[in-house]
Amino acid sequence: MKSSSRSRLAPRMFPRIPPIAGVRLTTQSVGIKYARRHDLLLVDCVRGSTVAGVFTRSTTAAAPVMWCREQLSRGRIRGLVVNSGNANAFTGLAGEEAVRATAAAAAQALGCRRNQVFVASTGVIGEPLPLNRLTGAMPQMVEALGPGGWRAAARAIRTTDTFIKGAWRRCEIDGHEITLGGIAKGSGMIAPKMGTMLAFLFTNARIPSIALQAMLRASVETSFNSITVDSDTSTSDTVLLVATGRSNHSRLDSPHGPKLRDFRRALDEVMVELATQVVRDGEGASKFVTIEVSGASSWRMARSVGLSIANSPLVKTAIAGEDANWGRIVMAVGKSGVVVGSNALSISMGGIVIAQKGERLADYDEAAVALHLKNSEVHIGVDLGQGRGKATVWTCDLTHGYIEINADYRT
Amino acid sequence: MKSSSRSRLAPRMFPRIPPIAGVRLTTQSVGIKYARRHDLLLVDCVRGSTVAGVFTRSTTAAAPVMWCREQLSRGRIRGLVVNSGNANAFTGLAGEEAVRATAAAAAQALGCRRNQVFVASTGVIGEPLPLNRLTGAMPQMVEALGPGGWRAAARAIRTTDTFIKGAWRRCEIDGHEITLGGIAKGSGMIAPKMGTMLAFLFTNARIPSIALQAMLRASVETSFNSITVDSDTSTSDTVLLVATGRSNHSRLDSPHGPKLRDFRRALDEVMVELATQVVRDGEGASKFVTIEVSGASSWRMARSVGLSIANSPLVKTAIAGEDANWGRIVMAVGKSGVVVGSNALSISMGGIVIAQKGERLADYDEAAVALHLKNSEVHIGVDLGQGRGKATVWTCDLTHGYIEINADYRT
Repeated sequence: MKSSSRSRLAPRMFPRIPPIAGVRLTTQSVGIKYARRHDLLLVDCVRGSTVAGVFTRSTTAAAPVMWCREQLSRGRIRGLVVNSGNANAFTGLAGEEAVRATAAAAAQALGCRRNQVFVASTGVIGEPLPLNRLTGAMPQMVEALGPGGWRAAARAIRTTDTFIKGAWRRCEIDGHEITLGGIAKGSGMIAPKMGTMLAFLFTNARIPSIALQAMLRASVETSFNSITVDSDTSTSDTVLLVATGRSNHSRLDSPHGPKLRDFRRALDEVMVELATQVVRDGEGASKFVTIEVSGASSWRMARSVGLSIANSPLVKTAIAGEDANWGRIVMAVGKSGVVVGSNALSISMGGIVIAQKGERLADYDEAAVALHLKNSEVHIGVDLGQGRGKATVWTCDLTHGYIEINADYRT
Repeated sequence: MKSSSRSRLAPRMFPRIPPIAGVRLTTQSVGIKYARRHDLLLVDCVRGSTVAGVFTRSTTAAAPVMWCREQLSRGRIRGLVVNSGNANAFTGLAGEEAVRATAAAAAQALGCRRNQVFVASTGVIGEPLPLNRLTGAMPQMVEALGPGGWRAAARAIRTTDTFIKGAWRRCEIDGHEITLGGIAKGSGMIAPKMGTMLAFLFTNARIPSIALQAMLRASVETSFNSITVDSDTSTSDTVLLVATGRSNHSRLDSPHGPKLRDFRRALDEVMVELATQVVRDGEGASKFVTIEVSGASSWRMARSVGLSIANSPLVKTAIAGEDANWGRIVMAVGKSGVVVGSNALSISMGGIVIAQKGERLADYDEAAVALHLKNSEVHIGVDLGQGRGKATVWTCDLTHGYIEINADYRT
């Protein structure tokens, strides 16, 4: 890993996520790839915990992703093992065997069944996983489990990340106080065809896995599936949401009902906070870019135009250069494939209208836009002039830093 | 325009394209954006010339593209006007009026109808075109028309290009010697959803426009639609093929017949040569990358996987860094959406097999691949292990040069 300094777009500090009833954590250094740092996380979830998950849509998904998908149908979780430094992807049958063995070792140490242990790996693709280092560590790690320790957990799962990522909210279900906390990692190979990269959320709420899954699926669309760093899709993307059921509120089956409204709000907020932290740590990023697309005929169309802008290297380099080259936004709308009336498109940057209904404003003030672009937070507004669909997408700029980090990641 | 030095991937020299019977050219400096260089090209095609064209699939296509599409249905051409420095894109009704006026001025000077004049513009998007500089130059330019002058023509149409692009072939139709020559420009905003960027081909063959169009459409798929520099699609991409009919061979209607076999071969060769020259001038490129995908169930699937690899910033930066990070090729295959059996994928670089049937070779020699990556010509081979479909895609690496050029193109 290239040691990079902390992103200038990072939040001031890692949040003080409180312990969550039913969740215990521990981390350890087992030397998978990194020396002198913890690279393995073990989470113990109390008996009865339910789980929801969203995974990469890559057709070359890593072995741990395939394992998790298989276990998810049962909706139950007792353990989670996460390692950094090696993705255990494109590792053939040996890779599948490594996941099974890891799950089995954790299960034995935790006293549960193998298929109640979820596994996630992140790092280099195609290298065999040094399996014994993982399995050998389990008995000792189980002894060290404790509540809290979110900061250490977030540290253990990072790769090229320049800061650790976490978010939490309090909310209420049925009059009972609920805590929802999560950690994430991710910086490159970030594109929105999935629940991006690794994110693990935990709550003491008592929600059956089917309802949990429905809420997670909905929330991922407007958070992790609405961000992009470099348009590349990881083989290992995994988002898990665990509900320990330690709160005493009544059991709630419908994910859409009013009793879960406050929880859904908290979930969306934590998910967006984690997802945008990933963008703020985009490899080489110097600007955090919010793209709001409105006037589309659907939410889906709006997001598709937003992602086309967010994935355009020419838009991203213009922002890096603080260049008000809004013609590239026009280009990116055009390449999205969405049909736009030639007299319909309006564009703004930093709230300053540049073009309206297909033409540049006669009195467009480029100096004002140039000034906005000097900020580290950039806003792009696009209106398609056809309907009421709208979406927000987040990305970062494309700088020399991205090239530096990625031209010699492995060496 | 950032003045960049000539790409190290450029061909040794611009080819000696001979005059083509029925085609006369001239260029002039009218100061649209660049000082001290010719930025306007006028081509006169003899009465009876037929034309085929392929254009950008951008939904925000520039005004000249819409004009050309309209005129193409008649299949006839007498004049072609091309300017660099301003794309006349996203310029509303004023932009459409500018194209009409340009065509009208050229038509008057050439003595033909306005709808027999094709127009192409390349450069900045969203700026009004200084129309009078174009129309005012026409009478004088018509006086200066002459055969040959391909080098000056290729110079006049370039923007961020670091070298001028041309190719030609001799071939035979029905026992008669035929010349086919063409010029192209392009360096950034290159992605394969169209006939990419500007390319103009001329031949003295006598081929009706419908047959010409069929051959051009076929040829563009394996040339301009099989290259990518940065995945961004221009608003102005235009490929025109003009047949002046000055050769005395018999009139040939079927584009598929044996009499046109040699011409089709020459057309494919010129198209690939022009398209790969565009890649060799990819903004900031230091490596020319050929990606051969085989074992697909169709040509289309093979190209789609090839383009997914060619458009991956992580693959492109790894090549820039001469890093044998083949795991990123696995990732790019996975994000293409093409379903690959987990024991089917094979990968090679520089002819050296890295992985076979879904797993890294036990005796894989990374040093040999690292040595290959030091070349300026890099080869990637991917076999999907399902069928006989194959395709070749060309791209370049992603370097600091791309960031430098695009972070301050306008300023």
